[in-house]
Amino acid sequence: MFLFNRLVLLVSLFCIGVVQAQSMDSIFIRQLADEIFLRSKAYENLRVLTKNIGPRLAGSSGMVKAEKWGLAAMQSAGADQAWMQACMVPHWVRGGTDKATTMVNTVAGKRGVSLDVVALGNSFGSGPNGITAEVVEVKSFEELELKKDQVKGKIVFYNYPFNATYVKTFQAYGDASKYRGQGPSQAAKYGAVGTIVRSMSHGANNHPHTGSTRYDSSYAKIPAVAIGLEDADQLSQWLEKQTVKVKLETHGYFLPDTIGHNIIGELKGAEFPDQIITVGGHLDSWDNCEGAHDDGAGCVQTIEILRAFKAIGYQPRHTIRFVLFANEENGLRGGTKYAEEAKEKNEKHIFALESDAGGFTPRGFGFSVSDEQFQKITQWQSLISPYGCSEFSRGGGGADIGPLNRLFKTPLAGLQPDSQRYFDYHHARNDVFEAVNRRELELGAINMAALIYLIDRYAL
Amino acid sequence: MFLFNRLVLLVSLFCIGVVQAQSMDSIFIRQLADEIFLRSKAYENLRVLTKNIGPRLAGSSGMVKAEKWGLAAMQSAGADQAWMQACMVPHWVRGGTDKATTMVNTVAGKRGVSLDVVALGNSFGSGPNGITAEVVEVKSFEELELKKDQVKGKIVFYNYPFNATYVKTFQAYGDASKYRGQGPSQAAKYGAVGTIVRSMSHGANNHPHTGSTRYDSSYAKIPAVAIGLEDADQLSQWLEKQTVKVKLETHGYFLPDTIGHNIIGELKGAEFPDQIITVGGHLDSWDNCEGAHDDGAGCVQTIEILRAFKAIGYQPRHTIRFVLFANEENGLRGGTKYAEEAKEKNEKHIFALESDAGGFTPRGFGFSVSDEQFQKITQWQSLISPYGCSEFSRGGGGADIGPLNRLFKTPLAGLQPDSQRYFDYHHARNDVFEAVNRRELELGAINMAALIYLIDRYAL
Repeated sequence: MFLFNRLVLLVSLFCIGVVQAQSMDSIFIRQLADEIFLRSKAYENLRVLTKNIGPRLAGSSGMVKAEKWGLAAMQSAGADQAWMQACMVPHWVRGGTDKATTMVNTVAGKRGVSLDVVALGNSFGSGPNGITAEVVEVKSFEELELKKDQVKGKIVFYNYPFNATYVKTFQAYGDASKYRGQGPSQAAKYGAVGTIVRSMSHGANNHPHTGSTRYDSSYAKIPAVAIGLEDADQLSQWLEKQTVKVKLETHGYFLPDTIGHNIIGELKGAEFPDQIITVGGHLDSWDNCEGAHDDGAGCVQTIEILRAFKAIGYQPRHTIRFVLFANEENGLRGGTKYAEEAKEKNEKHIFALESDAGGFTPRGFGFSVSDEQFQKITQWQSLISPYGCSEFSRGGGGADIGPLNRLFKTPLAGLQPDSQRYFDYHHARNDVFEAVNRRELELGAINMAALIYLIDRYAL
Repeated sequence: MFLFNRLVLLVSLFCIGVVQAQSMDSIFIRQLADEIFLRSKAYENLRVLTKNIGPRLAGSSGMVKAEKWGLAAMQSAGADQAWMQACMVPHWVRGGTDKATTMVNTVAGKRGVSLDVVALGNSFGSGPNGITAEVVEVKSFEELELKKDQVKGKIVFYNYPFNATYVKTFQAYGDASKYRGQGPSQAAKYGAVGTIVRSMSHGANNHPHTGSTRYDSSYAKIPAVAIGLEDADQLSQWLEKQTVKVKLETHGYFLPDTIGHNIIGELKGAEFPDQIITVGGHLDSWDNCEGAHDDGAGCVQTIEILRAFKAIGYQPRHTIRFVLFANEENGLRGGTKYAEEAKEKNEKHIFALESDAGGFTPRGFGFSVSDEQFQKITQWQSLISPYGCSEFSRGGGGADIGPLNRLFKTPLAGLQPDSQRYFDYHHARNDVFEAVNRRELELGAINMAALIYLIDRYAL
């Protein structure tokens, strides 16, 4: 009985300890949230990044300006130290205005109809005279196989619809994006001379959405464009009734690789300075937009967490690195360099978090962690969920922090904002500052800051 | 042992039954979701309601057009029967363009600066010559008490900030809206001749936000306007350095009460035709906007649930009424009439759900139900949460269905979409069709349809 009482006492003390810790954590997170809601610089930083700097594809002059801005922003947010980590980045150039024009009378009785297209990132130009050819529509790679004898000398039009029935829109993207990535080479394999890909979007407009394509070196590197949804539907309707010839004019080419930089700000850990927590987004954007959601949002949230920690005088136990990664969109050289240099220096990376799914209202985090780690994380759910991230799920992270996991098995997390609007803007000309809501952006930073704080306090 | 085995068997069979039912429900809800994602009319209906009809305040010609549209929409969505339920509604008229103009040289050196204002709903006009008076700023009713001897003959400017630190923005609204509701009469009590109220918004623009005020008949009914946030800050800055005189010109008045209508579509219950489930939104909007989020969204979601049930051939067990309520904004006569007539006819109302918090991405439902009912509802959470409503909380419903609860103790629920953007648009000129995202709107309808289905199938 005595022993039992002692046990009850011990358990009680332990529970009181846990409750007190939770309550202290809850107060601290509230303080972080108030700091960010009331004094955030995230929205103003995003305005400067998108409006004053704008597009910032790897290798471009926008990249250079953005890097300079990022370094100054890290310093001004209060980093103990901030630096630029150099890495070689590809330098793809669009080279001119992308065009697709009908070269026959369409059913509507018009010739020379301009379709709204944008060349795919990393794609090669059509040459000075463009390429003019008949269009063959396929709805899928399976249909391409069936029509493989009909596509020689033609333009293959991949008209694979973005699946509206997936609640989480990234599922639709995962499903459809293979046509952008592999479509051109699959078509070239059967002798096609160009490709038009239906944009990966549910958008209620006609903006075409770009993104990387990956040529297979076994086949000709044929020109490739994405087409807006209304024009895709229109082209498909014409093709039901007649043959349509299109002239494609694109101008893409590569300049030699050049030097880009990851921008790193650091808060030194007081207890475990050699154990590193990374939080970041990517600084590059496509050249056809301001890259506000992709991924200006992730960058300014990252800087905001640093600013808020400093502003309320938080002294982390572990070293926290705030990173704006280079070249996520068409090479991933920044994320790769970050992990490789860490490996060379024998650094210890205990956790990494990325925000690269837009500056929308936060709903949860996806975790690439062990069962045991996930169980621990789950105990923090009630501390974070009042700020919006109530959905904790397995799997997730971010493209730029992926290499850390591959080299170090570093546990990863990715912020999961609401995804309904993301593919209205993704890689399209309307991904601009005005498409981001201040409070939604700030709430993302608050939830990320809370998670980083808990990781720093309790590790995994 | 034999008994124990029998018990195990019974429990197992029961569990299998529950699992099978859940699995059937899950399949049915998936079918509802696909129907709405792929063939929804909600977005197109919203376009017609906002763009072709537009503002539709009680008593206005817009109200009459909207009612006619609503009846036709219910019929076309497949109601077994649809009708208009008449009720007397107030007929407040803005009467002209609201103006507030500075009548002294401001610090900026300008006289005659126009401030962006809108008269509060139900407020009385300033008379043909306007009222010109010095402005006294107060941050709260407490400060008004302190300054009560200084406001006679003056315009009281309530500059109470919308609290940015509340994560759920309706809390900030609940906190601030008393200045709009009671502010004018509280100021008139001490002899003020006019009121300017800081808009209830975090909006990153200068649009003023209207909404009802409630005069206390003991005091003079003085003119009252809401002011945009930038102008409120500007006015406050001027007042720090000098006295500011403003001329207020408003023109509000009441015409005699007129006839408005609730628009009701019905699906007759196969098993319990006399037990009624209500789902609805309100058809009226303020006169200064298209009322897209408030509450065009709730109306078209309501019609969409009816359409989807019919389209997939769902035969409800209980009678389901789809209601577009009249006059929520400045009288609540529609909701009151609906409950009163139900009482007269001795109807049995077993549940009511309202959507009146914007057409944003759904996050949860708030329930005004008993403990026992809430426990039952909680068991459905895993069926609904994959579609976005993962947060089930106590408390909630909607203004229009409130009277049902008061007269019948009917259990209520309110759809709770993400609230971050709501007060950027609420009662302001930018509450237009373009501010609503198609998928977010449709997801709201999907979650509501799922809840109504489960209520119909299992009751409470």
